[in-house]
Amino acid sequence: MFLSTFKRTAIFFILTALIFIAVPQAFAAGVSQEMFTVNNTWMLVATFLVFIMHLGFATLEVGLTRAKNTNNILFKNTSIVAIGLLTYTLVGFNLMYPGDFNGWIGFAGMGISSPDGDAGLIGYAEGAYTYYTDFIFQAMFAATAATIVSGAVAERVKLSSFLVFSAVYVAIVYPIVGSWKWGGGWLDQMGFYDFAGSTLVHSVGGWAALTGIMLLGPRLGKFVDGQIRPILPHSMPLATIGVFLLWLGWFGFNGGSVLSADPGLVSLVFVTTSLAAAAGVMGSMIVSWKVQGKPDLSMILNGSLAGLVGVTASADTVTVTGSILIGLISGVIVVFSVMAFDKFKIDDPVGALSVHLVCGIWGTLAVGIFSTNPAHKLWIQFVGVLAYGVACFAMSFLFFFVLKKTMGLRVSEQEEREGLDIHEHGVEAYNDFQMTSK
Amino acid sequence: MFLSTFKRTAIFFILTALIFIAVPQAFAAGVSQEMFTVNNTWMLVATFLVFIMHLGFATLEVGLTRAKNTNNILFKNTSIVAIGLLTYTLVGFNLMYPGDFNGWIGFAGMGISSPDGDAGLIGYAEGAYTYYTDFIFQAMFAATAATIVSGAVAERVKLSSFLVFSAVYVAIVYPIVGSWKWGGGWLDQMGFYDFAGSTLVHSVGGWAALTGIMLLGPRLGKFVDGQIRPILPHSMPLATIGVFLLWLGWFGFNGGSVLSADPGLVSLVFVTTSLAAAAGVMGSMIVSWKVQGKPDLSMILNGSLAGLVGVTASADTVTVTGSILIGLISGVIVVFSVMAFDKFKIDDPVGALSVHLVCGIWGTLAVGIFSTNPAHKLWIQFVGVLAYGVACFAMSFLFFFVLKKTMGLRVSEQEEREGLDIHEHGVEAYNDFQMTSK
Amino acid sequence: MFLSTFKRTAIFFILTALIFIAVPQAFAAGVSQEMFTVNNTWMLVATFLVFIMHLGFATLEVGLTRAKNTNNILFKNTSIVAIGLLTYTLVGFNLMYPGDFNGWIGFAGMGISSPDGDAGLIGYAEGAYTYYTDFIFQAMFAATAATIVSGAVAERVKLSSFLVFSAVYVAIVYPIVGSWKWGGGWLDQMGFYDFAGSTLVHSVGGWAALTGIMLLGPRLGKFVDGQIRPILPHSMPLATIGVFLLWLGWFGFNGGSVLSADPGLVSLVFVTTSLAAAAGVMGSMIVSWKVQGKPDLSMILNGSLAGLVGVTASADTVTVTGSILIGLISGVIVVFSVMAFDKFKIDDPVGALSVHLVCGIWGTLAVGIFSTNPAHKLWIQFVGVLAYGVACFAMSFLFFFVLKKTMGLRVSEQEEREGLDIHEHGVEAYNDFQMTSK
Repeated sequence: MFLSTFKRTAIFFILTALIFIAVPQAFAAGVSQEMFTVNNTWMLVATFLVFIMHLGFATLEVGLTRAKNTNNILFKNTSIVAIGLLTYTLVGFNLMYPGDFNGWIGFAGMGISSPDGDAGLIGYAEGAYTYYTDFIFQAMFAATAATIVSGAVAERVKLSSFLVFSAVYVAIVYPIVGSWKWGGGWLDQMGFYDFAGSTLVHSVGGWAALTGIMLLGPRLGKFVDGQIRPILPHSMPLATIGVFLLWLGWFGFNGGSVLSADPGLVSLVFVTTSLAAAAGVMGSMIVSWKVQGKPDLSMILNGSLAGLVGVTASADTVTVTGSILIGLISGVIVVFSVMAFDKFKIDDPVGALSVHLVCGIWGTLAVGIFSTNPAHKLWIQFVGVLAYGVACFAMSFLFFFVLKKTMGLRVSEQEEREGLDIHEHGVEAYNDFQMTSK
Repeated sequence: MFLSTFKRTAIFFILTALIFIAVPQAFAAGVSQEMFTVNNTWMLVATFLVFIMHLGFATLEVGLTRAKNTNNILFKNTSIVAIGLLTYTLVGFNLMYPGDFNGWIGFAGMGISSPDGDAGLIGYAEGAYTYYTDFIFQAMFAATAATIVSGAVAERVKLSSFLVFSAVYVAIVYPIVGSWKWGGGWLDQMGFYDFAGSTLVHSVGGWAALTGIMLLGPRLGKFVDGQIRPILPHSMPLATIGVFLLWLGWFGFNGGSVLSADPGLVSLVFVTTSLAAAAGVMGSMIVSWKVQGKPDLSMILNGSLAGLVGVTASADTVTVTGSILIGLISGVIVVFSVMAFDKFKIDDPVGALSVHLVCGIWGTLAVGIFSTNPAHKLWIQFVGVLAYGVACFAMSFLFFFVLKKTMGLRVSEQEEREGLDIHEHGVEAYNDFQMTSK
Repeated sequence: MFLSTFKRTAIFFILTALIFIAVPQAFAAGVSQEMFTVNNTWMLVATFLVFIMHLGFATLEVGLTRAKNTNNILFKNTSIVAIGLLTYTLVGFNLMYPGDFNGWIGFAGMGISSPDGDAGLIGYAEGAYTYYTDFIFQAMFAATAATIVSGAVAERVKLSSFLVFSAVYVAIVYPIVGSWKWGGGWLDQMGFYDFAGSTLVHSVGGWAALTGIMLLGPRLGKFVDGQIRPILPHSMPLATIGVFLLWLGWFGFNGGSVLSADPGLVSLVFVTTSLAAAAGVMGSMIVSWKVQGKPDLSMILNGSLAGLVGVTASADTVTVTGSILIGLISGVIVVFSVMAFDKFKIDDPVGALSVHLVCGIWGTLAVGIFSTNPAHKLWIQFVGVLAYGVACFAMSFLFFFVLKKTMGLRVSEQEEREGLDIHEHGVEAYNDFQMTSK
């Protein structure tokens, strides 16, 4: 037997006692059992929506890159979910919310620190959701930060090094800097606002993406003789599936960040999130059609994501008009940003920097411009952006640098040319199709 | 600063006041805060389900057509969501529900017409959901009508003309004719019934699809020397993904049309919707296997959609048996309809007319046959079908005709032969695969 | 009659009594309409999540097999949903839950046995959900058992025979053996525990998969001259989409098996389910990387499913640590199992036996090891595994054997070589791509 009969019995009684504890506890917090149940149910719905974003990231990244690296990318994205959930279980959760539980080694760490039903499951969030709900929602969030990096370093990063980086970033960097705001830390006390993570998730991922690209360099063949040579995506249907799934997941990402099922706030967030995405599509469509002279699918796909990232910091605190303007500007920004990074020879295969870093910064600043809450100040938002930028850039640079000097960061030239799938994984992702020569 | 400090403060207090207003308001309407929250949460779940239908339409349409037009179709379907949401924001919403808010320029139009928390957010639907929820659910619906057209005119329509048409159709036609029933207009008062839109969404889209096809003509190579030459789909996995996502979304499309989380009605709608889809698969399978002599995947895919469209008008008012019969007959109809349109040289690449128009009409009439509510009369349903047919045919014909004479409706022959992707978008959707010669 | 009236009445009273013991406080006050609505809404959300698993199975199976059999597989998987829902409507539901409604021919059979609103819609599950909700949730479950078989017999089974088998299995075998536990039958009374169906769904499907493979034999070219020749998957993106959709659906599969929206239990189930899947990925990654010397995408995909199947029997009754260990061991098991089946020349194209049968057995036994409820005994779990194994093996062998002797079970050698799509369906699934010669 894995657990002693005594311990099993004790845990069993705690679990079965939940239902009895729920009623008085929730009422003690001034919330009925029914309201507690609705809130908790909505948070779990938001959790599975955030989960499906990982499939969105996977298909977007695969679609926008070359067929020869498909298995590698899918392996990365599947692993990240697993690594993210487990490291957040072992370390991250308690690191991020230090006010709630003492100790460094976190959630239910090997079965010892899981709170009992009374303190942990009901009282935790004053009638909004259980401890388990809070953990799983936050854990799904945490894993997305690492996924953002994945796209930027695709097609040349060494798998093992990337997995180590992801684990460290989710386990340490993401929760530490996250606690500055969501853990009630110094930026929170200063008045910094980031509703669902334009900075805390998207820029945090984006800064790591930038350092990764800097230390890796561009893919072979991207910049030749001072010229930019586009590397074509291998499947736009996959990329489009990815964007729609990300948009879908954002209803949970932003909608769940209300942290309850409050009808007014959650529905407002649905509206601002959707309209910012729609405006992002329009902004990028108009600009790219004008600038490039043709309607560019990958630009409007990134435009919708740009709008979503842009409104993430302010989705619960802007007007409908505000959300449309934020999205529209995000869509414009993303087009020029993609072109600018290319110009500076920063090779970002999926546009992750433009979408997550640049529009994450824009969205965070936009709180100071469009928020209906006068307590939100532009200069404080700027301080927050700066603080996260410095901390994340420094830490991710350090980690990537150490990995480069130890395990190595980049695959061999031959492997990159012939494809990571055949070299690193021993098998191609597509086997019955005639492929073009590489 | 975008807004004056005064206005920001005012809006902020309104937003923060929501939670306090919710309790008395909801109770005043005889509904507890808890019930209001459950209802609203379900409507938001239904909203994201309807959203994902757009990905379903996109992958279905892409899968059933040729690889060379993939980017074009994905561009259309992504744009439609954006255009649909934004035009419905600016115009459609208030046009469709004129009884609720005065004025032609609608929802939160540039920040001036958004209702305040008391009147708009809580009192709006008597304890069922907020104003924002109502808007976003309806806006997602509106965009589907335009998407239906997309499939029918695929592979030859000019992108810009189609986008203009979509905007106009969602902004003006859909809401005006929609108000006849859902806005409490003349057909509603007459006793016409269309639960979730067999007519109001699917036929409205279907009639426009028909006029589009008529004014465009068939694709090159479809009808040669009086013979029907099938144009083969390029990816049946994408088409199948599309159908499953549409079916998934229909749980929100029909389930959300209950307009509350009423346990009996929503669960009945889940059952009738699912069984009609299942029966549609069986009906089309049996007939197509018999008639064509082989089990045809595209037929059963369209059969499931036919069943779904068929039951949409009556999902809350038929018995389980009724829903199975409606679905079964829809499945039979769709097979013969696809063959008939081919015979009449009406080239509909994805079968949109058979699924949405023909089964939309059938489903609307079926209310008069299978409804358990004796107030639903077949002849009134017939009047409704006729009225929508005349109005939508006329208006969509007019719009398409004007577009044909001004911007042009069809791409050049060379562009159609070589693919819209390379000509209109400058890049192929698949770049590492060896494609067959066009 | 399946059970004597006396036994049925007894089971009904036992079930009712259990509910009273479990939720005395709620009953003391009576379950409020609000709580009823939340519970019912969550169960409907769980229903659409289980629905989307069918798309997950379809894309996983298609992705892991060859392009030439794609239409055939998609046809099977689309049909199974339809057949499963309809046969469960006509027969299965009442067969499985005999204590609740009289009669052999089940749910609303042709409109005569549908209960009225009072008895059927509200009283049915004492405040948890409606009769319709119960039916549609269970019907979606039932169809998954048949789908599991589909993957194992892919690329060589005759379509018509497989469809007949599915109908019979869902209509008769699944509900009869299911009633042993979930219908309050002998195994339930003995103390056997299977929370969401490691055995009742996954092993039940797995045993049929085994007999199907035994009677069909391996695919041509899989075992040549005593050597194992891998048959390569045609699209790993499709396979990965499948796994993520299955994981997504599992939130409903396990989360819905709580049979209410109970905050503590549903959130615990979300955590244990996710962490088991994550641990399954890690377990299979470590072992396969070690054993095969390379990171194998298909192994970690199956590893996540293995973890999910493994925790399904115990998701509401283990600790967080317990779930991680169950998932980790599942991930290890699946790698060795896949290699072992290959060695024994059991040709299972998608690894269905390793995932669903082997890890289903492991997960059921794991209840006896990791459960926090001391009433759960390892030997009783073993009895359950054995009973289901004997019954399902015998019955599915019999059905497949009869089909083999009557309709035939396997396609011709020529058809298998050239592809089931072109032979059985008359059209390829991919038409604009240059395919490699078969």
